[in-house]
Amino acid sequence: MSKEDLLLLDFWVSPFCMRVKIAFAEKGLAYISQEEDLLGGKSELLLKSNPIYQKVPILLDNGKPIVESSNIVYYIDEKYANQNPLLPSCAYGRSRARFWADFIDKKVYEGGMAIWRSTKADELELAKKEFVDILKKLEGALGDKDYFGGDNFGYIDVIAISMTCWFHAYERFGGFKVDEECPKFDAWIKRCLKRESVASVLPDPEKVYEFVVMLRKMHGIE
Amino acid sequence: MSKEDLLLLDFWVSPFCMRVKIAFAEKGLAYISQEEDLLGGKSELLLKSNPIYQKVPILLDNGKPIVESSNIVYYIDEKYANQNPLLPSCAYGRSRARFWADFIDKKVYEGGMAIWRSTKADELELAKKEFVDILKKLEGALGDKDYFGGDNFGYIDVIAISMTCWFHAYERFGGFKVDEECPKFDAWIKRCLKRESVASVLPDPEKVYEFVVMLRKMHGIE
Repeated sequence: MSKEDLLLLDFWVSPFCMRVKIAFAEKGLAYISQEEDLLGGKSELLLKSNPIYQKVPILLDNGKPIVESSNIVYYIDEKYANQNPLLPSCAYGRSRARFWADFIDKKVYEGGMAIWRSTKADELELAKKEFVDILKKLEGALGDKDYFGGDNFGYIDVIAISMTCWFHAYERFGGFKVDEECPKFDAWIKRCLKRESVASVLPDPEKVYEFVVMLRKMHGIE
Repeated sequence: MSKEDLLLLDFWVSPFCMRVKIAFAEKGLAYISQEEDLLGGKSELLLKSNPIYQKVPILLDNGKPIVESSNIVYYIDEKYANQNPLLPSCAYGRSRARFWADFIDKKVYEGGMAIWRSTKADELELAKKEFVDILKKLEGALGDKDYFGGDNFGYIDVIAISMTCWFHAYERFGGFKVDEECPKFDAWIKRCLKRESVASVLPDPEKVYEFVVMLRKMHGIE
């Protein structure tokens, strides 16, 4: 397989794109990343490949589009099932993996956005409380295990860890600390960050913070 | 396997519960349905088995809970993979199945609710337009095929067909006709309704309409 076969329509600060890149790294797959200029204008290829949502990430596997990041990671794991499997082999474990990926998809990004878009103190307090509650639910699912699926870094870890590079920004705008609120979850973050697949993909949290500062300005929040 | 092994926490009018029952029928699996009294009060077993969302359907497979209806149907199909498979065997087909199931989950029920909860004419007009737009996207995905996956009734069909027994209520409150707006999608509904697995599970649309009338009263809409 040449790396031209796997083309990722990408955006550097999107935690959803990062998931796909971590999965590629875990699988040892070569691919081409094509950066989209989301603030300037979406490419024709993007619009044609994801007409329903018009969002990145989009994986083009020999030209065939797969969209929605959790779905793409699932696809990569099923297609290259023999290379370092991320999903459990049993149906029950896989159902649990899909459940928590969906929970993360529904809650974490929007929960963080509620923090950085808050303009009033009571609004911010509520957003912070709800965000910490989401993390506590995830911490409960992690339990005393090293990773969400047990001893090995797997599907839920890929889905969740990508979101955490935005946490520094949430902490600064929210006035809280993840390591104080959820120490076990924080230990899991640090454990994942030691992996080459994660460390090589996640951007500097300070750069993400600067991006969120710009987003706030775009929304008229100073 | 005795039918006691598969226990479904159920609610007769929930399209999400219907999905699981259609999947059981397609697979020829015996199970026990335990009706929840959602308007009176949720059972301890429900609250314990789905602490995150506290919703039906919940499948207890030998006591182990699986929640979220699309996820349950996926689980049933993976666990009983040799009995009338619903998901495609190839990774790409499966990714497409997950994508459309997720689209239906995100759009159809809420889209319908926006219709029956409308209290103003312009609000209703917008809700109706958006709902028809959702159906047109699904009609586009169906194309000229008999079923969403091709020649055979499969995963996306199970996920989508359950939603349609509420359409009669949406049509009456919205003042539109699905067969006029989306004739190919309507033909697909009629095709699916000829299947024993679907016809035996879906309730009378008139009874669903009466339920929605009651919901409207509960929300102070007359």
